[in-house]
Amino acid sequence: MKFNTITPEFVESLSAIVGREHVLLPAAADDMLRYTHDETEDLRFEPEVVLKPANAAEISLIMKFCHENLIPVTPRGAGTGLSGGALAIHKGVILSTERLDKILHIDERNLQATVEPGVITQVFQEAVIERGLFYPPDPSSRGSCFLGGNLSQSSGGPRAVKYGVTKDYVLNMEVVLPTGEITWTGANVLKNATGYNLTQLMVGSEGTLGIITKIVFRLIPYPTQNLVLLVPFRKEEEACEVVSRIFMAGIVPSALEFMEREAIEWADRYLGFATERPADERAHLLIELDGNDMDLLYKDAERLYEVLEKFDVGDILVADNEKQKNELWQLRRNVAHAVKSNSIYKEEDTVVPRAELPALLKGVKEIGARYNFKSVCYGHAGDGNLHVNIVKADMSDDDWNNKLPEGIKEIFRLCVRLGGTISGEHGIGLVQRQYIDIALNEVQLRLMRGIKDLFDPHGILNPGKIF
Amino acid sequence: MKFNTITPEFVESLSAIVGREHVLLPAAADDMLRYTHDETEDLRFEPEVVLKPANAAEISLIMKFCHENLIPVTPRGAGTGLSGGALAIHKGVILSTERLDKILHIDERNLQATVEPGVITQVFQEAVIERGLFYPPDPSSRGSCFLGGNLSQSSGGPRAVKYGVTKDYVLNMEVVLPTGEITWTGANVLKNATGYNLTQLMVGSEGTLGIITKIVFRLIPYPTQNLVLLVPFRKEEEACEVVSRIFMAGIVPSALEFMEREAIEWADRYLGFATERPADERAHLLIELDGNDMDLLYKDAERLYEVLEKFDVGDILVADNEKQKNELWQLRRNVAHAVKSNSIYKEEDTVVPRAELPALLKGVKEIGARYNFKSVCYGHAGDGNLHVNIVKADMSDDDWNNKLPEGIKEIFRLCVRLGGTISGEHGIGLVQRQYIDIALNEVQLRLMRGIKDLFDPHGILNPGKIF
Repeated sequence: MKFNTITPEFVESLSAIVGREHVLLPAAADDMLRYTHDETEDLRFEPEVVLKPANAAEISLIMKFCHENLIPVTPRGAGTGLSGGALAIHKGVILSTERLDKILHIDERNLQATVEPGVITQVFQEAVIERGLFYPPDPSSRGSCFLGGNLSQSSGGPRAVKYGVTKDYVLNMEVVLPTGEITWTGANVLKNATGYNLTQLMVGSEGTLGIITKIVFRLIPYPTQNLVLLVPFRKEEEACEVVSRIFMAGIVPSALEFMEREAIEWADRYLGFATERPADERAHLLIELDGNDMDLLYKDAERLYEVLEKFDVGDILVADNEKQKNELWQLRRNVAHAVKSNSIYKEEDTVVPRAELPALLKGVKEIGARYNFKSVCYGHAGDGNLHVNIVKADMSDDDWNNKLPEGIKEIFRLCVRLGGTISGEHGIGLVQRQYIDIALNEVQLRLMRGIKDLFDPHGILNPGKIF
Repeated sequence: MKFNTITPEFVESLSAIVGREHVLLPAAADDMLRYTHDETEDLRFEPEVVLKPANAAEISLIMKFCHENLIPVTPRGAGTGLSGGALAIHKGVILSTERLDKILHIDERNLQATVEPGVITQVFQEAVIERGLFYPPDPSSRGSCFLGGNLSQSSGGPRAVKYGVTKDYVLNMEVVLPTGEITWTGANVLKNATGYNLTQLMVGSEGTLGIITKIVFRLIPYPTQNLVLLVPFRKEEEACEVVSRIFMAGIVPSALEFMEREAIEWADRYLGFATERPADERAHLLIELDGNDMDLLYKDAERLYEVLEKFDVGDILVADNEKQKNELWQLRRNVAHAVKSNSIYKEEDTVVPRAELPALLKGVKEIGARYNFKSVCYGHAGDGNLHVNIVKADMSDDDWNNKLPEGIKEIFRLCVRLGGTISGEHGIGLVQRQYIDIALNEVQLRLMRGIKDLFDPHGILNPGKIF
């Protein structure tokens, strides 16, 4: 695909659509800077122009123009992605949704909300909590990431284990297609058997099929009570093994998070917590139980203890006040930042059926030993979703660039052999593209490429991502 | 699209694939009969041949052959569909999945099960309950319908209000494409951000994109306790209005079913129940609460009473023994049969945001008055999914065939105006095809037709359905 570069005339035309004050050019180096990267490793790509449209109508005009003039457009939310999806690798336009930042309607009668894509996830969560409602998807970056980005990546987070991921809360979306057409994808209903599911086709498509301009979410009543437990294990694999036992005992926690020794230690240090952790504690599970009845939660906790006591666990910390709970969650949410601040790293978003977690963890360490890389593992164990952070530390650039990808391939092949796949919630984007044929066969890729061509006949929308 | 008719040579070739004993021809009139109709009105279409393959490999050979020879193929599960999706309207092949009837694996470690598409829904439900596991989707026809058909239509049923529909339980599927290629659609994981969501594209596609040959479902722990309440209302619209109030009070019932006076009366009669219902009871809600703790359920029931007492309700029946519960569920499950046994009918599967139910019900009656048709309404009120059964009674054939469709159009336009759509769980199939442009715009239809062409370049798979 041969794209056109952006001429001054093109800039004129695009500025006329969004207004000059909503256009950034490379000359404005400082302001431009944050649009050159997301949170994926240390990758940087400078676009030719950043556009900040106000609404679907402006986005439609931009897309029509770029479609006609073969200009690549990379949509961007908050830029918190971990697979490089928001990077303008073919230059062209960065289309930022930051000005589409309004919660349009919280419909308490229908337990639905209509929002724009640039609303920050946590802002939305707090707005609905005020009405006694719950929007469970909860990525670690919830304080800064956008709902539109969450949909593009099918984001999850710790509550997915009980409540599902972002895709399970979207009912309908308004999208602008690469050709500039504006359409809704479905209807504002809980059940829909009317034609193909365009809504779910758009979710997780990483900004390659259209630009989301409005979202209708379903909401649920907010559970008023919870308990948080931190359970130390003396063997990493037992921490993984207990995960499926908990579900087999009929307990469905609202979070079930795994952290290797180093994950929690680095997070302690990063946050300045002076916690002394016994040397024989090799891993932790952070377990949250939620509901509306405290007595019932304590009963559930007792049943949980019955499962745990069959394993080699240390002293369990039960947090039942807000301060303790917040500290535990802070630890978990800051593991990624802690790892990142320590070293250059690559984060692999492996996912397997949950009972295969022990085999996955063991395999990752064994592959690491063979390829000579160090990994720090943590993640949403209840979903079988293990984030494998490979830290560069003192690995040579040559090994990092040339040898490591072979090790990553082995990890991904292991995931697939265990019934899993190569991304649970971060997407493929740019950095996992080279591994996509480990997860997807020729038939699947042909169908997906065909869908891409159907939606985007000139291939201008987020080119070079996924495949 | 010009299809070929099936010659004796074609029959030879197809028989060589599946074995002669698994082929039915029109000459075998009695055996053929049940393949000429489903449960949609009184429609009948005779195929040229019925094939009963044993597995994906045979289905692949059939599809390759039919793709090359331009022979239409209509896939068929149990034939319990309500929109004519399994009718061979272009003649050709009926491909029955009845021999793919095995539960291949119930994986208790991962709370997953792998099944073939011809397993009867209730058989599967009972098999997993034996292991303490729960597969919640629960269409009224669960005693005879197939899981593959449930997926093709994105079936729901009464438990959807708390637990979601069929689409929410499928993780992965093996499908045979119209070209004969065999592929899985995803991975056996709870979260997947690896390429486009082919699994959800296949769900609800009504057998037009591929033939499902294996399904991986997720399961959840079985809730051990429940309470069932039958609540009579003196005003139909209040029964609808209370629905959204229940959720607003933070209560999420595991079923919340609406029945008009005549729906329950006809079901009483159909089942031979001698129940006397006070003349002023105009509608009923059947409400189920479930969980693992009976005390908590009684607490929830008290909160439910607080909501209900603000409305004009009659004596509430609380069923807390199995016999009573079964009787209430039998009533609800037999409404459709009762209506059907009374008159020729059309069933419209309207769905709106749940707080719009009173407006929908009022609108349906008002449109009925103008077009002079009688309707019996019932359905999954918690989902905003109202089944409108239009009974022919003494309407003339001319009005039934020519005037009524205009009334139906008005009902569907009302659904769309209220934020809903024209099918919640029955699909579009043949009979709603004429109304599809009320629900879907030109852009949506173009994308869906494009997807159809991509999967099925010769248009041989279930032609003439949806659009």
